[in-house]
Amino acid sequence: MNVEIIVIGDELLIGQVTDTNSSWIARNLNKIGWEVMEITTVRDRRAEIISAIRQSFDRVDVVLMTGGLGPTKDDITKQTLCEYFGGKLIFDAEVQKNNDLFFERRGLQMNDSTRTQAMVPDSCTVIQNPVGTAPIMWFEKDGKVLVSMPGVPAEMQRAMTAEVLPRLRKRYPDHTAILHKTCLVKDFSESALSEFLSDFEAGLPASIKLAYLPVPGVIRLRLTARGENEEILSRQLDDSFSRLEDLLGKHIFCHRDATMAEALGLLLSYKGLTIATAESCTGGNIAHEITLIPGSSAYYKGSVVSYANEVKVQVLDVDPSTIEKHGVVSCEVVEQMAKGVRRLLKTDCAIATSGIAGPDGAVPGKPVGTVCIAVAVGDRIVSRKYCFENSRAININRFTHTALLQMISVLSE
Amino acid sequence: MNVEIIVIGDELLIGQVTDTNSSWIARNLNKIGWEVMEITTVRDRRAEIISAIRQSFDRVDVVLMTGGLGPTKDDITKQTLCEYFGGKLIFDAEVQKNNDLFFERRGLQMNDSTRTQAMVPDSCTVIQNPVGTAPIMWFEKDGKVLVSMPGVPAEMQRAMTAEVLPRLRKRYPDHTAILHKTCLVKDFSESALSEFLSDFEAGLPASIKLAYLPVPGVIRLRLTARGENEEILSRQLDDSFSRLEDLLGKHIFCHRDATMAEALGLLLSYKGLTIATAESCTGGNIAHEITLIPGSSAYYKGSVVSYANEVKVQVLDVDPSTIEKHGVVSCEVVEQMAKGVRRLLKTDCAIATSGIAGPDGAVPGKPVGTVCIAVAVGDRIVSRKYCFENSRAININRFTHTALLQMISVLSE
Repeated sequence: MNVEIIVIGDELLIGQVTDTNSSWIARNLNKIGWEVMEITTVRDRRAEIISAIRQSFDRVDVVLMTGGLGPTKDDITKQTLCEYFGGKLIFDAEVQKNNDLFFERRGLQMNDSTRTQAMVPDSCTVIQNPVGTAPIMWFEKDGKVLVSMPGVPAEMQRAMTAEVLPRLRKRYPDHTAILHKTCLVKDFSESALSEFLSDFEAGLPASIKLAYLPVPGVIRLRLTARGENEEILSRQLDDSFSRLEDLLGKHIFCHRDATMAEALGLLLSYKGLTIATAESCTGGNIAHEITLIPGSSAYYKGSVVSYANEVKVQVLDVDPSTIEKHGVVSCEVVEQMAKGVRRLLKTDCAIATSGIAGPDGAVPGKPVGTVCIAVAVGDRIVSRKYCFENSRAININRFTHTALLQMISVLSE
Repeated sequence: MNVEIIVIGDELLIGQVTDTNSSWIARNLNKIGWEVMEITTVRDRRAEIISAIRQSFDRVDVVLMTGGLGPTKDDITKQTLCEYFGGKLIFDAEVQKNNDLFFERRGLQMNDSTRTQAMVPDSCTVIQNPVGTAPIMWFEKDGKVLVSMPGVPAEMQRAMTAEVLPRLRKRYPDHTAILHKTCLVKDFSESALSEFLSDFEAGLPASIKLAYLPVPGVIRLRLTARGENEEILSRQLDDSFSRLEDLLGKHIFCHRDATMAEALGLLLSYKGLTIATAESCTGGNIAHEITLIPGSSAYYKGSVVSYANEVKVQVLDVDPSTIEKHGVVSCEVVEQMAKGVRRLLKTDCAIATSGIAGPDGAVPGKPVGTVCIAVAVGDRIVSRKYCFENSRAININRFTHTALLQMISVLSE
């Protein structure tokens, strides 16, 4: 099934907000084998919205739309859809009841513009939105479906999961099976890996495709099988995946789809180990990535973000003379930080970082982008120095993933 | 000047990657008064790329394109542009030299597919990319401009800032002045604020527009002046902004555009205060947001991410009987955490959080989304309990911003 996504909102076209809805929708459609052909982001303008809908319906039968449903004057999606699909806006008592409850739960007062949220086109099926005030609207015309959802990510995600996806699958029953198997590979660039796997890729059955999904330092390899007979597909997929595992051996550090922090969590859980972090330049981002994973409290005890040098000395027990001699961005210092946090938080493993995220802070021989990372497993400590060349936010992100990968590498040796 | 953005890559249409490039580009064009009319995201398919270019050129004269320039077989943007604009691929020695250096600096081996990066259409102006291997390509035809840039954010950002934006401004000189003034407002919903400001908005001079840019809990208000005479505009803008400040008084907590963490940093710097954080449910994300700001080391000393209860007790000196009596998610516990981290890291202020991000961990009376936040300024501690109802990542984000806002509110009383 082919789908398109239309994202509406002036805030997206002035760069005030980054659209995360369409990748979320695409990811969840992809899992059931539906393909997103194109994503169009348009302003809150009647003519532009209508033109985007027309063009999408020229290519596909299903259009998913987010945004443009707020209570303020600039949001004109509802009126525009009413015009496109015909009919008029009518009062929906069910929506009003939902919104009364919504405001009551939050202890807020409803005003006139919020009350307009209960006006809906009589040409659509209204789906209630228990986590917001804009209802979901399902339109059908000439065998084509358009679903309009709120732009607030939590509201859209709830609507998709609980209502829209189940209804779409019922509306377009599909007997094609689609199966995925994913693994995470280290030590290769994308082009080197594609060269290394070119014979493997050429020998895959026609039902199976290989996708390279790189993030810095890591390549996510995904095999996708698509066909009629799920049993045969599943066997073919298992066979191909095993061959891939044989070919890549230790370069595969996670045998399923996962973020870096999830891959580390799987390893720690498997080995029954606990971990702590001591962060300087990453400023808590490693802790944040680890604790984004539900259940991480089983192996993660905490972090000391030792942004100031005196915190490194007083809380993590780093020797001030080591800082003086080697500089605060040095393997010697991060090794002591790792040792210190492991002792303080009583864990098996530890990760420690110290570096220069930029834009300031460079010293001779240590440009912006330099980072030292130590990982400890018991008394064994492995430290390394890296250099990236990026802006602050990208450096912090890169340092974080490099630290997670270094810990994973040592744990999976 | 009207512009469109075309984003290319299968990875975007399966939701593997979230496109942050187009919002970055839109934000930077918006600052110079250029308008992005539409953003189109298409797959790595020849016909779809060509159709997207045609449709964009029907609407605007300038198209900025990112992605689809990798060395692997699926990336066909370069060939497609060569076909669209005419000409053939030729070897560019300058690009090869850049890429040799690039590989040398990283200690990597170049392979055949990487070498194809130096083949470029002879119909474009090649702009070197010192931070990657895919060159920037500037095409002109029938008075229209298309610039193709790599999809890696750091490479695109560097290309835009150093090369593409200056060249575009030179190519399309514009004498319209555009000025912005922004402030951050708390205590209002978007609709309540738009009602409160409706007279102010109606009375604005024709050259000035007011935009509401809400994030949860906060509304960013932006006045934009546009016209010929910069001096007159600037005076009009200052007048309107002053009236806005008079109307909103203490509800404005930051008188310029800033993230929440930046707004907090400005307040702390202004008052000459230092801060530390003690995080449970936010797992280091407050520390991360604070340290994303360059120069934050002037006021931020660090964090104890006390994910495990024993870390709260042993490192932050929380009384175990308080945890037993009130539960770990309680105002009593976060108050002790704030006190403990302030003492340990020797700061003036502290923020502490404990909550239930979900999906597990709910207890009777404390559903997923519950968070207790304490902020300390000297010996004064203010704690509050909130309840949001979201998924884990969104809750963590919401907790973080609520904590920053609570600290800002107490500091600006």
